[in-house]
Amino acid sequence: MKVLTPPMGWNSWDCYGAAVTEDIVRANAEYMAKNLKQFGWEYVVVDIQWSEPDAKTHEYSPFTELCMDEYSRLIPAVNRFPSSEGGKGFGPLAEYVHSLGLKFGIHIMRGIPRQAVHRNTPILGSDHTAREIAKTNSICAWNTDMYGVDPDKEGAKAYYDSIFALYAEWGVDFIKCDDICRELPHEEGELVLLSESLRNCGRDMIVSLSPGPALLEKAELYKQTSNMWRITDDFWDKWDLLYNMFERCEKWSCHTGAGHWPDADMLPVGAIRQDYSPENRTAFTFDEQKTMMTLWSIFRSPLMIGAEMTKFDDETLSLLTNPDILGMLKNARHSHQVWRRNIDGAEVILWVAVNSEGGVYAAVFNAGEKEIETAIPLTDIELYETYSVTELWSGESFRNTDTLKVKIPSHGAEAFLIV
Amino acid sequence: MKVLTPPMGWNSWDCYGAAVTEDIVRANAEYMAKNLKQFGWEYVVVDIQWSEPDAKTHEYSPFTELCMDEYSRLIPAVNRFPSSEGGKGFGPLAEYVHSLGLKFGIHIMRGIPRQAVHRNTPILGSDHTAREIAKTNSICAWNTDMYGVDPDKEGAKAYYDSIFALYAEWGVDFIKCDDICRELPHEEGELVLLSESLRNCGRDMIVSLSPGPALLEKAELYKQTSNMWRITDDFWDKWDLLYNMFERCEKWSCHTGAGHWPDADMLPVGAIRQDYSPENRTAFTFDEQKTMMTLWSIFRSPLMIGAEMTKFDDETLSLLTNPDILGMLKNARHSHQVWRRNIDGAEVILWVAVNSEGGVYAAVFNAGEKEIETAIPLTDIELYETYSVTELWSGESFRNTDTLKVKIPSHGAEAFLIV
Amino acid sequence: MKVLTPPMGWNSWDCYGAAVTEDIVRANAEYMAKNLKQFGWEYVVVDIQWSEPDAKTHEYSPFTELCMDEYSRLIPAVNRFPSSEGGKGFGPLAEYVHSLGLKFGIHIMRGIPRQAVHRNTPILGSDHTAREIAKTNSICAWNTDMYGVDPDKEGAKAYYDSIFALYAEWGVDFIKCDDICRELPHEEGELVLLSESLRNCGRDMIVSLSPGPALLEKAELYKQTSNMWRITDDFWDKWDLLYNMFERCEKWSCHTGAGHWPDADMLPVGAIRQDYSPENRTAFTFDEQKTMMTLWSIFRSPLMIGAEMTKFDDETLSLLTNPDILGMLKNARHSHQVWRRNIDGAEVILWVAVNSEGGVYAAVFNAGEKEIETAIPLTDIELYETYSVTELWSGESFRNTDTLKVKIPSHGAEAFLIV
Amino acid sequence: MKVLTPPMGWNSWDCYGAAVTEDIVRANAEYMAKNLKQFGWEYVVVDIQWSEPDAKTHEYSPFTELCMDEYSRLIPAVNRFPSSEGGKGFGPLAEYVHSLGLKFGIHIMRGIPRQAVHRNTPILGSDHTAREIAKTNSICAWNTDMYGVDPDKEGAKAYYDSIFALYAEWGVDFIKCDDICRELPHEEGELVLLSESLRNCGRDMIVSLSPGPALLEKAELYKQTSNMWRITDDFWDKWDLLYNMFERCEKWSCHTGAGHWPDADMLPVGAIRQDYSPENRTAFTFDEQKTMMTLWSIFRSPLMIGAEMTKFDDETLSLLTNPDILGMLKNARHSHQVWRRNIDGAEVILWVAVNSEGGVYAAVFNAGEKEIETAIPLTDIELYETYSVTELWSGESFRNTDTLKVKIPSHGAEAFLIV
Repeated sequence: MKVLTPPMGWNSWDCYGAAVTEDIVRANAEYMAKNLKQFGWEYVVVDIQWSEPDAKTHEYSPFTELCMDEYSRLIPAVNRFPSSEGGKGFGPLAEYVHSLGLKFGIHIMRGIPRQAVHRNTPILGSDHTAREIAKTNSICAWNTDMYGVDPDKEGAKAYYDSIFALYAEWGVDFIKCDDICRELPHEEGELVLLSESLRNCGRDMIVSLSPGPALLEKAELYKQTSNMWRITDDFWDKWDLLYNMFERCEKWSCHTGAGHWPDADMLPVGAIRQDYSPENRTAFTFDEQKTMMTLWSIFRSPLMIGAEMTKFDDETLSLLTNPDILGMLKNARHSHQVWRRNIDGAEVILWVAVNSEGGVYAAVFNAGEKEIETAIPLTDIELYETYSVTELWSGESFRNTDTLKVKIPSHGAEAFLIV
Repeated sequence: MKVLTPPMGWNSWDCYGAAVTEDIVRANAEYMAKNLKQFGWEYVVVDIQWSEPDAKTHEYSPFTELCMDEYSRLIPAVNRFPSSEGGKGFGPLAEYVHSLGLKFGIHIMRGIPRQAVHRNTPILGSDHTAREIAKTNSICAWNTDMYGVDPDKEGAKAYYDSIFALYAEWGVDFIKCDDICRELPHEEGELVLLSESLRNCGRDMIVSLSPGPALLEKAELYKQTSNMWRITDDFWDKWDLLYNMFERCEKWSCHTGAGHWPDADMLPVGAIRQDYSPENRTAFTFDEQKTMMTLWSIFRSPLMIGAEMTKFDDETLSLLTNPDILGMLKNARHSHQVWRRNIDGAEVILWVAVNSEGGVYAAVFNAGEKEIETAIPLTDIELYETYSVTELWSGESFRNTDTLKVKIPSHGAEAFLIV
Repeated sequence: MKVLTPPMGWNSWDCYGAAVTEDIVRANAEYMAKNLKQFGWEYVVVDIQWSEPDAKTHEYSPFTELCMDEYSRLIPAVNRFPSSEGGKGFGPLAEYVHSLGLKFGIHIMRGIPRQAVHRNTPILGSDHTAREIAKTNSICAWNTDMYGVDPDKEGAKAYYDSIFALYAEWGVDFIKCDDICRELPHEEGELVLLSESLRNCGRDMIVSLSPGPALLEKAELYKQTSNMWRITDDFWDKWDLLYNMFERCEKWSCHTGAGHWPDADMLPVGAIRQDYSPENRTAFTFDEQKTMMTLWSIFRSPLMIGAEMTKFDDETLSLLTNPDILGMLKNARHSHQVWRRNIDGAEVILWVAVNSEGGVYAAVFNAGEKEIETAIPLTDIELYETYSVTELWSGESFRNTDTLKVKIPSHGAEAFLIV
Repeated sequence: MKVLTPPMGWNSWDCYGAAVTEDIVRANAEYMAKNLKQFGWEYVVVDIQWSEPDAKTHEYSPFTELCMDEYSRLIPAVNRFPSSEGGKGFGPLAEYVHSLGLKFGIHIMRGIPRQAVHRNTPILGSDHTAREIAKTNSICAWNTDMYGVDPDKEGAKAYYDSIFALYAEWGVDFIKCDDICRELPHEEGELVLLSESLRNCGRDMIVSLSPGPALLEKAELYKQTSNMWRITDDFWDKWDLLYNMFERCEKWSCHTGAGHWPDADMLPVGAIRQDYSPENRTAFTFDEQKTMMTLWSIFRSPLMIGAEMTKFDDETLSLLTNPDILGMLKNARHSHQVWRRNIDGAEVILWVAVNSEGGVYAAVFNAGEKEIETAIPLTDIELYETYSVTELWSGESFRNTDTLKVKIPSHGAEAFLIV
């Protein structure tokens, strides 16, 4: 599926881990429809372990029993997703999300349930069984639910066709597939098989690959098999992870665009880790959150909100609904880092992008530990005249200038439109 | 268990793979008792998959059903080992082997059966279950029977105590433990736990670790937890594998002795791969077999015959019953490679060892592609007088000489006692 | 010195190696002034060994005697550059080149002449001597003329100040400094010292660093100390070197612009290697030459002609004077590779850049061994309307199209302006 | 030259660096003849820079002027070695050392003097000049005296023949050749050329290669071209360097013997670094010195005293003249490390060797930070009876024992003869 802008949405992982429930999903969808939809936010994604009845937190239960249909396919746990009762799966929930004008997504793990393999259950549309298609030495390093599927085995294609047929029937718009991104080149065959089944299932779905870090030398394959792929391991609210993202984005920037997006991962803003305590909030400062939104937007990463949205404060809401920043996400082209330089003892980073609607975007980041105040000549981004410059967070404008005048606190950022 | 000489015996793998049966074991034990025992051969070892009813060849059946007792412990498949009927396990077979004046060994895999984990069966002497002690991301790369056991979990020690108690009860003398040698450092904790349970089980058993290549930097750990450990992946009847062994033996030679033996693996001589065809015979030339026996003996590797012994021809029998070569296996001390050198276009390798009963052993190998004829000065091994020299394969002797006169065909060897 | 476009010129290396003479330089300058200047070509650069009286070919004479003034500074060999007689150095030649409306450049080696060190000659403007400033273990790997200068030694700055003062006095506009690009991080201190002396010498000079491959992780340092730096070892007329350049350009593309240019090296076109035979011509096919010019231009590498220009044929001249291709060199911004993909068995590479005067550039390369004919959707470069497209080599135009229709021979290229 | 025992002697480096003088050499030779000769000490070696008139300490003077004859050969500086006056070189000093019943050695650097190359002086017995045989990119990393000699150049052999002819004429018995040990594989050709010239010079000389660490994979080449080669960089009186030596000796032990000796470097005992202050003494404790002597002796490293011997105290003298320890140096065979193990919180190391005159040597080292007291079973070294055991430093004996009872202070050692 070709998408013109980076996907924007919400995912249950940062706030509920393996334990999200239907009522939470509905409440967040309703909030999004009311408060965020008009800014472009549209995907509502149920993350990992929705077929596990006993999931409680972000931790996984080893070798736990999962809900499965008679064809080795995982289905939602009815105790957590009541509307799935009677074999209806995620159909009713998807329908509700669609009724709000939004799109619905689910998480899946590469492979076939181990319980299907050990019970040797059948594959729909095939004479083969789960045991016959499992790849003998392919397991996930951090979760015990699945075996990999061996793409060379007969029955493997039938299995992948059968699960995507089910998801299409449910009305799924977005698949986050896990254990299949940094796992190359070992699991390359399974990725290709899976993406072909998905593309031919009869319904357009975004494909998101996880976990990172993706392999730079496999960039062409990610582009051809998916819409977005993770460039880091799980991203959380720690400065060193955010700092580290500059280098990752630098390397991946030329692979962004035309329906394929290197993915800097979810935005751990607002009320996260709610499965541990409803009091939990992001550890990022607001300046760090602006840095994150600025970098993700000029780099054009997909944006997935990690918060329990119904608990948004005004500041967080403003962070995610700045039309100029989100405009940069949509219209930036050919983004890349320009330099990374010590200025007055602070590490300063300059990015540039072309605005497809006219003008040039620039972003300046202060990765240092103290405020900086400086003027960056526009000649550094090969603009040799004078221009009108608007800072996108503050709205402040300058006319007839040949520099970017910045005053940025530690770990903060400014973003500019230059016309 | 401290053993004074490298273990010598027979193992079913090279001839029957995963599919050996009780009658074959008995026939080979009888042959050994009659023809080989007097030369020091004593262990009769049943290799992998003895709990699998349907095993046919060297190939493994993915996710196959295994015979297991109510405490998650594997037991022999009765169809293949009839005397195990009625819960007697390997007791009767061990008893028979003992009655022949020999010792009995079995193969095990590190870990706990996956079928036990997925059925969540109990652990003897513990409130814990198989599911609770399995290590979530620890599987064998080439066999789907087991999960690793997590040494940090309660119940893990009880499980290992319970299996070695069973083997002690059966009368087992030798444990070949697989998937636990080259798997360090990841599975180091499980190796330590396993070796402690085994040492405290109340019966002396040799511990043999597999598969190789072992890690040289873990030499001290192998010495402390086992009697022998594999220095290569499976060794078969191919010259390049034999050629390669010189370098492995060179590196491991200083770790040999006092009850711990780097293991160059089984001897693929005579009638091997019998599960595929009874016509199959080793691809090694007789010179290559002499090279193998000479290197294994001066290096003091354990010796495990890979053949169906009842089909021995005279030449093969002579290879394995040369008392002078086997004397070198027992009495060599401080063995090491002296040099590796080009002589007249052939690569020649010289080893030396002290004879604990007096004199010095030397072995000369022709790793080149043509016959060599040369005289190696005894000063190369720091012998500065004249000596009596006997070549151990031919029995030929020289008096008052200060050289080793050798005439060795391609891939062949000569072995000397110098007094 | 800040330059707005990649430098364009001629350098004597590809055609005359270490042995160019004044009359050759003058003849080529005259040719350039008459035939190329109007297209933007302006630098005339004398390459290595101009101080060596006996240089004959591309080979270096070990430990040869060089012409040097009383202050340890190399000066032109009068037998090869007669106008330098009487201590006038390159002043008269530079003056002549300037009189033609062109600019004059010379090659230097990092460091101080070994003959100065061993004779312990003085440094101008300093009490120190050559011996005192030489870095003891710093030599060039392929030329014996110099020792490195130790930036921590007193007198080191005086030496570099003294040589650039001399070059400024001569009227030099361009310095190609050798043995100082891939030599980082070892010689980083000397690079910084040298670039500071040069920048403060009172005359604007382009600084070009050689040889490559430059170190990607030192990109910021190259930008800050030079105008251009080599991203390969010497580039010659061989397809594998050209093929290899795609990956180099992909990695370096984001470091291009605003007065600093990753340098893909000279253009080995036309009559090269004239020191060996006046009959020698480039081994590149014309399609390969178009690929080279297209890649260098969209990537915005500096362009340095390697040929004896007076021997140009019409085809070669046309290659170097296509105003649309040279326009792309000047106006491309934010260039980057888009994809590299197998199409009908051929490896096809797509590049894109923004035109600072409006529209978008694209280049399609056929790195395969057979002709390809295909249509590349403009959506691949995120253009979602229909456009007018002009192929820059043929001048052929298409209106209202949403693809790039290409028919490209093996090793060939097409370049497009899309508006 | 084949030597039966590791060379033992004195070298001027540790006490006088680059600045030793004739009177010092004579005084130390006289001391050795009187006090050490009867224990096997015999070589008196003049280390680096004897041709440099101005050398003062351990530091080198960059590009300094050296004394050289008309054939590009370095000769002693007369101001430092007065007896060399009139072109007599080291002849008179060698003669004096010989008159004391000792042997005389000198240090040389691989290559040809740079001053010869830059002056283009002749090579004896050849039409070629220094400039023609120098290897253009071969210099020493830490000393500026020489260029490497290119073995492929005509004249190279003549040069090496000419210098060894001179040394033979002087009566030199021992050549320590520097910049040629860890420099492989680059300078392998020069090593082979040099060793052939030396072997054919008409006089037996020991060849010692420096500096280390030598390359283990080149062991056979060192054996074939030299008598001893350094397995470390310069060894000094620091515990971490001594601690580190255990691993080096472990790896190199199988390459010891029959006239070729991995060299653990000089013994920094007693009065060292005398060029900086006559008060300087080794920083090793006496226990550490015993550890060093024990390890060097059981490993059979060459022994070269680093002290100003005339300042020996009784303890140091006793350290170097223990006949049982020196007996182990001479008679140990097949030495190797047995294990390295934690005992009561201290790291303990066990070595073993065969005594060529009967019995077995063992050494126990306490590499930990506290005293240990333990009994090591003789079965660890495969001795399965009871024996008489004598500790060689204390002379204490035990009869009918099956253990080594040790009580060793931190960083100390005990050595045993077991018969």
